[in-house]
Amino acid sequence: MDLNKHTLFFTDLIGNRCLSNEVDCKEYDHDETEDLHFLPQFVLKPETVNEISLIMAYCHEHAIPVTPAGARTGLSGGALAIKGGVLLSMERFNKILQIDEKNHQVITEPGVITQVLQDAVKEKGLFYPPDPASKGSCFIGGNISENSGGPKAVKYGVTKDYVLNLELVLPTGEIIWTGANVLKNATGYNLTQLIVGSEGTLAVVTKIVLKLIPHPTHDLLMLVPFYDAQKACEAVAAIFQAGITPSGLEFMERDALTWTQAFTNDFSLHVADNHAAHLLIEVDGFDPDQLMLDCEKIMGVLEKFETDEILFAETAAQKQGLWSLRRKVGEAVKSQSIYKEEDTVVPRFALPDLLFHVKRIGKEFGFHSVCYGHAGDGNLHINIIKGDMDDEKWNNELTAAMRELFGEVVKLGGTISGEHGIGLVQKPYMDIAFPEVSLNLMRQIKTVFDPKGILNPGKIF
Amino acid sequence: MDLNKHTLFFTDLIGNRCLSNEVDCKEYDHDETEDLHFLPQFVLKPETVNEISLIMAYCHEHAIPVTPAGARTGLSGGALAIKGGVLLSMERFNKILQIDEKNHQVITEPGVITQVLQDAVKEKGLFYPPDPASKGSCFIGGNISENSGGPKAVKYGVTKDYVLNLELVLPTGEIIWTGANVLKNATGYNLTQLIVGSEGTLAVVTKIVLKLIPHPTHDLLMLVPFYDAQKACEAVAAIFQAGITPSGLEFMERDALTWTQAFTNDFSLHVADNHAAHLLIEVDGFDPDQLMLDCEKIMGVLEKFETDEILFAETAAQKQGLWSLRRKVGEAVKSQSIYKEEDTVVPRFALPDLLFHVKRIGKEFGFHSVCYGHAGDGNLHINIIKGDMDDEKWNNELTAAMRELFGEVVKLGGTISGEHGIGLVQKPYMDIAFPEVSLNLMRQIKTVFDPKGILNPGKIF
Repeated sequence: MDLNKHTLFFTDLIGNRCLSNEVDCKEYDHDETEDLHFLPQFVLKPETVNEISLIMAYCHEHAIPVTPAGARTGLSGGALAIKGGVLLSMERFNKILQIDEKNHQVITEPGVITQVLQDAVKEKGLFYPPDPASKGSCFIGGNISENSGGPKAVKYGVTKDYVLNLELVLPTGEIIWTGANVLKNATGYNLTQLIVGSEGTLAVVTKIVLKLIPHPTHDLLMLVPFYDAQKACEAVAAIFQAGITPSGLEFMERDALTWTQAFTNDFSLHVADNHAAHLLIEVDGFDPDQLMLDCEKIMGVLEKFETDEILFAETAAQKQGLWSLRRKVGEAVKSQSIYKEEDTVVPRFALPDLLFHVKRIGKEFGFHSVCYGHAGDGNLHINIIKGDMDDEKWNNELTAAMRELFGEVVKLGGTISGEHGIGLVQKPYMDIAFPEVSLNLMRQIKTVFDPKGILNPGKIF
Repeated sequence: MDLNKHTLFFTDLIGNRCLSNEVDCKEYDHDETEDLHFLPQFVLKPETVNEISLIMAYCHEHAIPVTPAGARTGLSGGALAIKGGVLLSMERFNKILQIDEKNHQVITEPGVITQVLQDAVKEKGLFYPPDPASKGSCFIGGNISENSGGPKAVKYGVTKDYVLNLELVLPTGEIIWTGANVLKNATGYNLTQLIVGSEGTLAVVTKIVLKLIPHPTHDLLMLVPFYDAQKACEAVAAIFQAGITPSGLEFMERDALTWTQAFTNDFSLHVADNHAAHLLIEVDGFDPDQLMLDCEKIMGVLEKFETDEILFAETAAQKQGLWSLRRKVGEAVKSQSIYKEEDTVVPRFALPDLLFHVKRIGKEFGFHSVCYGHAGDGNLHINIIKGDMDDEKWNNELTAAMRELFGEVVKLGGTISGEHGIGLVQKPYMDIAFPEVSLNLMRQIKTVFDPKGILNPGKIF
């Protein structure tokens, strides 16, 4: 690679928003995936769609790898510049362009923090529901790349359900919109939905039009301790079968909760010795009386399972405390040990079977796991803990265990990633989720958008 | 085309479920689009996915056009065998395979009538919301091809929002599933969503997994007469801005209603001389008191507009009567005159502007139009009436009027089809909705799936 020539071009275009020395680039060599580091040659921070267009056209011409990056909070390695080249940081695309109250839509740049966007539309009484655990730091553009979910997905759907239209820069530098700012669209192939969840491998998203809904005015939150983790999983489907759709239904194994307590040094919640798992259940809506009725119905369902005393959050602070505990499980596990996080998803009723197989395979291969996640969606985050396992075993034997686990997931009607994406770390398992015919279709679609394979190379396939 | 050889192959494979004489094939030469007729050489009625796989492999080898057809109720010509060859009728794929109450899912074949599917899941307390006006005759597979909407879309979303997983036969004969039976999926490109709305040009859908939701237990319906059609359109956005999400919000111009009364010979509803348009507004949910409050809120909003007395449907029969009137508008218009139906969609708040342009362009080009549709979605069906316009003008000058109209639609942030698809009749206007770069992406995606271009050729592009 002719680094001097490229440096000249990029610097000429965007001045000191082109970083090219190793020290500056170091900061951009990782996301939140395990302990992986890949140094880009350039970090570029464009501010306009035109700049991105010129960068892409140049990189296309010179076959320079380009890895788009948001807040780099991803968990599958999507923002890692594994082939070097350009790390295209979208951090300067941080403006909400228009909150369209008349049509319940928002037009935003991709570098806006998800929670900032949520708070801004909430001020107008509007709601953008999808919010991953990292909502305080992740970018909305990253959410679109990974088709993020989060705890509200169980009632309100995932990112893809809110994306109406996207402005893109193609790997060849052309700028297009994928659709229109409308709620229904039967005009040609759905390019919008093809881009959502494509992990920055097909195009660079530069503007986003999202659907909004009226913000619910009330919610109730309860934490339910179970003596048996399997039974907690079984209770999940039972709640839905009773006709209730909670706005959150989270599962936490004992370790998930106690490790987080240790990590945050907050022991205000009493976890008894015989608590094997907890469900965190939220209902929301516009009518507090209706929510009380929903909670009563849920408690009626829970009576059929053995639970300890249910904790109702009574204040906003208490609610926030419980949600914060849940949101910090990932960080807490990360602080304890080297680990791998799997993001399995199955039909909701198969959750107890999935948990059974996790623990069975853990016993057979000798690993400890900490499980938690969006149980209402059948989406279980499985943290495989390295602990004192020797490196040889960790590096070489674990793949076989994962293959067995993912095989069970697919047999249960599920798949290998619910909301984290495939990126780099799940790539070796794609053949379990899809036959070669399907993978070939995907590879060819990739080639349609990116004939030279310069955009986020080495991901998904 | 070597007809004898092909007849032999098809008959050998599926016996008398292969029709090849002109009289038999005649029945399959049209759908519900205008007065268009195209005769296929063969009508094949496979019963198994394996038969379809063998048919596609054979047709691929011999470059025989294949046009998949459902109930042929489509309005854009998607099921017309415009290049002759095989009309692949999915009418034998008429079984609901499994209603999975435990996971709130249904697995169905594509040839099931939408209403049959709705009724079957309703018996289990479950709800599949998307239902086009033709729900009593259209197939769920056709709904997937066109990404159908219908009146409930305004609250519950369109077909794409319920499709979890699809079994496909590719044009080359391979059989794949697009995804998994899960509520969230971040595993590779979203092939499921690429197929939904692709109008049978990418693959033949052979099994469908749909998400279901709890069926609402109560609804209220009101019909609101306006003296000014523009004001009716303005009221639509105002209702949403008041924080209400109706489960139906339909607009009917005066002619839409009176022509339907004449068509059905049912004049039980009094339409006064000064009624210019009506809104049909439904709210649904689980709590009747809440619905009454919603209605009161809606009436509060309507007070700001000049309306005549609001009719509340008091019995199930009355509700059904009003909905039936609305559903029959299309047929009624068709019975009156040769016509063209446009399926424009704009952001909801732009609806009055859209109606203004329809009437303005109508005046300039000298055509009468009857407008109605899913106003809550900004989706206006515009029926251009031929009436006594001479053929020369109808055939040659109307295209310019349509191009002007669609140009306005796109300027308003909308697009040329909300739920009917592009098919054959909207194909000439695709360049208004998309630049050549986007159309090229779509054409190349088509080639990825269908390298010889045998599947539903001549549609969309």
